[in-house]
Amino acid sequence: MTHPRWLDEREARAWRAFHKMYRQLNSAINRRLTSDSGLSTADYEILIPLSEAPGRRLRARDLGRGVDWEKSRLSHHIGRMQRRGLVDRQECPTDARGAFIQLTEEGWRAVEAAAPDHVETVRRYFIDLLSPEELETLTSIADRVVHRIAETTPDSDCGPPGCAEG
Amino acid sequence: MTHPRWLDEREARAWRAFHKMYRQLNSAINRRLTSDSGLSTADYEILIPLSEAPGRRLRARDLGRGVDWEKSRLSHHIGRMQRRGLVDRQECPTDARGAFIQLTEEGWRAVEAAAPDHVETVRRYFIDLLSPEELETLTSIADRVVHRIAETTPDSDCGPPGCAEG
Repeated sequence: MTHPRWLDEREARAWRAFHKMYRQLNSAINRRLTSDSGLSTADYEILIPLSEAPGRRLRARDLGRGVDWEKSRLSHHIGRMQRRGLVDRQECPTDARGAFIQLTEEGWRAVEAAAPDHVETVRRYFIDLLSPEELETLTSIADRVVHRIAETTPDSDCGPPGCAEG
Repeated sequence: MTHPRWLDEREARAWRAFHKMYRQLNSAINRRLTSDSGLSTADYEILIPLSEAPGRRLRARDLGRGVDWEKSRLSHHIGRMQRRGLVDRQECPTDARGAFIQLTEEGWRAVEAAAPDHVETVRRYFIDLLSPEELETLTSIADRVVHRIAETTPDSDCGPPGCAEG
């Protein structure tokens, strides 16, 4: 590569502003969530899809894909949430990756208690600051970026299905 | 809070898409950077501001503020980069937070070698997918969000200055 196409000032500013926003938003929301409910954003990311799933449970692999976490991060975090009584792990005897993660009653109550304050925080720091057109633009940008990454990244996670759904 | 203002479908979709984009973008860029240059995005985040600073050095506290890292993360990561010969730490005898982080020759060569491929990756996965208007919109959204967070977050990092510059 002999002639790098460096970012111009406008591009560099957008790139830096985007990162700064994400980092600050993430930590501001995490701080509020933790002080309001004792949950971290990582806990919340796991609890929400479980609370919305049929029977409040998901296969570990599907949960991991949904939140875009690496297997080791997911498994460590699920272990910690299990010890806090928020989720249960139901092993699949023939396929560890087919294990189900089940939301417990305590996990359900935790997410139910946290959600109203959390959505207010998300509104205050982000959603309410954007016009409907800006929300559309952001969604469209995000879809394009995710699509581009998928095009250029080999899918390393397409093994055969494990235990049948419950 | 008796009536939470839940996100509507469009808002929830934007919020999820935004997070998904960021996570995937971050890990795609990190994968490419590491395979092209052996640096992580965390290394790169630290190397760039140092490479642009007068004398290629910055106070630890200013570097930490610039990248929005917590003190402990910065100090651990700087320690690892020091052991790899990428940076040096020059203590300030009267104020640990006034210590300077100095880019080494090796760190300078590493960032110089990594930058051309990295900027291509950033273009391919992000910048080149956005129109000039979308870049402006994104920057404007980011500025608004950062401003809102700053308004509602006490500044916990406004101690007296330490060692004099240079």
